[in-house]
Amino acid sequence: MGLRFEIVAEDKATGARAGLLHTPHGIVETPVFMPVGTAGSIKGITQAQLEELGVQILLANTYHLYLRPGREIIRQMGGLHRFMAWPHPILTDSGGFQVMSLKGLVRVTEDGFWFKSHLDGSSHFLSPERAVEIQVALGADIIMTLDECVEYPASREALQRAVKLTGRWAGRSKEKLSALSSQPSAPSPQPLVPSPSLFGIVQGGVDKDLRRESVESLLELDFEGYAVGGLSVGEPKAEMYDMAEYTAQLLPRNRPRYLMGVGTPEDLVECVARGIDMFDCVMPTRNARNGGVFTSQGKVVIKNAKYAQDESPLDPACSCPACRRYSRSYIRHLFLAGEMLGAILTSQHNLHFYIDRMRKIRQSVLSGAFAEFLSGARAEC
Amino acid sequence: MGLRFEIVAEDKATGARAGLLHTPHGIVETPVFMPVGTAGSIKGITQAQLEELGVQILLANTYHLYLRPGREIIRQMGGLHRFMAWPHPILTDSGGFQVMSLKGLVRVTEDGFWFKSHLDGSSHFLSPERAVEIQVALGADIIMTLDECVEYPASREALQRAVKLTGRWAGRSKEKLSALSSQPSAPSPQPLVPSPSLFGIVQGGVDKDLRRESVESLLELDFEGYAVGGLSVGEPKAEMYDMAEYTAQLLPRNRPRYLMGVGTPEDLVECVARGIDMFDCVMPTRNARNGGVFTSQGKVVIKNAKYAQDESPLDPACSCPACRRYSRSYIRHLFLAGEMLGAILTSQHNLHFYIDRMRKIRQSVLSGAFAEFLSGARAEC
Repeated sequence: MGLRFEIVAEDKATGARAGLLHTPHGIVETPVFMPVGTAGSIKGITQAQLEELGVQILLANTYHLYLRPGREIIRQMGGLHRFMAWPHPILTDSGGFQVMSLKGLVRVTEDGFWFKSHLDGSSHFLSPERAVEIQVALGADIIMTLDECVEYPASREALQRAVKLTGRWAGRSKEKLSALSSQPSAPSPQPLVPSPSLFGIVQGGVDKDLRRESVESLLELDFEGYAVGGLSVGEPKAEMYDMAEYTAQLLPRNRPRYLMGVGTPEDLVECVARGIDMFDCVMPTRNARNGGVFTSQGKVVIKNAKYAQDESPLDPACSCPACRRYSRSYIRHLFLAGEMLGAILTSQHNLHFYIDRMRKIRQSVLSGAFAEFLSGARAEC
Repeated sequence: MGLRFEIVAEDKATGARAGLLHTPHGIVETPVFMPVGTAGSIKGITQAQLEELGVQILLANTYHLYLRPGREIIRQMGGLHRFMAWPHPILTDSGGFQVMSLKGLVRVTEDGFWFKSHLDGSSHFLSPERAVEIQVALGADIIMTLDECVEYPASREALQRAVKLTGRWAGRSKEKLSALSSQPSAPSPQPLVPSPSLFGIVQGGVDKDLRRESVESLLELDFEGYAVGGLSVGEPKAEMYDMAEYTAQLLPRNRPRYLMGVGTPEDLVECVARGIDMFDCVMPTRNARNGGVFTSQGKVVIKNAKYAQDESPLDPACSCPACRRYSRSYIRHLFLAGEMLGAILTSQHNLHFYIDRMRKIRQSVLSGAFAEFLSGARAEC
């Protein structure tokens, strides 16, 4: 087992906890926010800048990397860590979420997904076994089982079918990984991760019975970590929080819990309070590219005319490289002039905002002040 | 006078020289390559990265900054250095070259250029006086006179008219700067450059008599530096080299000589040999964004399939941040996937290639080995 999860502090009043996740490529301090490197790059940010920002682990999308450049090239290049020049922990998703979002281009069968590439329309098949195979070829530290994620709102039947299918696929994923691990490994230019850790994914929409059923089917298989999937797909925020909390408390205390695709800065603190340890979201970088900036004083839309002569940094309370050097006026100008540097600076800033917020959350759990941090964060909203 | 040009070494066999250009924002070692920050940003590169690359001075385009964000905003923000967060030397062009390239949207009169903005079609007037006024408002260390740059090929009449007009405009530019300098300066939030240095621009196409006439008209006015304009506009390379050499030897030894808009890495060494001290060109960054990479072994077109599994860096002989960390395979993937990081890394590399080449050229002049460097560079071609 490559993964060891060590809980170092637990909040008395909430479900919040601080831990250490030992992976083959280093230790991750939890709770943690994982930036999304869709095609093997966090858009606009160099790997050195990620290290400076304090990023400990990042997520890469199996679907995108499988289509381009393809797992064979990445395997030949010594695996994803070497290919991306990122010697720190990486989590890959299974590709299921991207495939499901292809709409019209995907067909779900018991065996897996039949889908057409968004790049060239070519036909592909993704089964639980293939998702594991591909992720092992990429060489990620943490890999995910293939699941069926259902949109909101959905019928109970559709949710129930997805829970059952996801459970069966979880079993097939685990078997495949065991089979691969017991095989003598193929020759490779560089040793890949010897034994990646597989996380199961809980589905069930906003239905508590189905969430419980999904958790139970996964617990039988005993995964090294558990993800809460199927949330942040359109349901009201209160339901998302409820489901995250309900699911988290059904999961074993000594395993990491990962809430997929979440969320806003408020979501991070609210869901840590509900027992979540890991998060990923494109929001900080995607918003940044559109000029949306997270600050200690709320959201700044940097293209607004009112910033034309604003000499202050994006966030006066921030110490990121963008805020230490540049004014709102200049960054607004860069956006209006279509200069790449605009998106680079706001991306740096937003990632720093997320990473820094998570660092403060963790610190407050360690010092026993999380409840205070939580009420402070709520008062700001 | 803000500028002092100190020659520290001269090559015996060629026109090459090494100097120090003392500007209000610091000393520039010449010969020097100036990256082009069209709209106040070197595309894709942060100012901290420029500093790490060893960039000593950059060029900004008056035409672009005048239209957006406008000189008033930049003046209000404390001038271009503060606005761009670049506390090192800046040279601005006069805007004439961009205006002339608007074609159909520009009309040349004795007074100046009437032109329509490429952004919104609005009408503008740029005279020698206004070009100086705008550049003074921006606060650059070195500013350029407005000139008329003629395309290649051109009739002798068109070239002669441009030489005479450029000469009259040079006089008007100088008078305007004197008038501004003797005025008590308007209140400003930050002190701008007290007295920018004005360079005159030699025109005359590939006609030696006209080049001489142009030089003579400028020498009467006694500028702090001289630019060779009207080259690299379509003439054969040999003619460009000839004209640069011919013009340089007509110019005073103790003033910096700036060859505008040039050029390739070979052009740098060839024109240093002909007595040029300063260069600017969009080539390193523009080529980089298209995947064109300068290396010690020639040009690499990084999108080529042959680099799909190439583990080596862009240039094995290079020590830039991109080459220290990333493979050709990964950077090719970034380009194919449309990831910003691809252009960021090739831009860093190409700028490093230019800056590093110029550093080596200067070193060879200082150590008396320039002739050797030159023949080595020629042998590589």
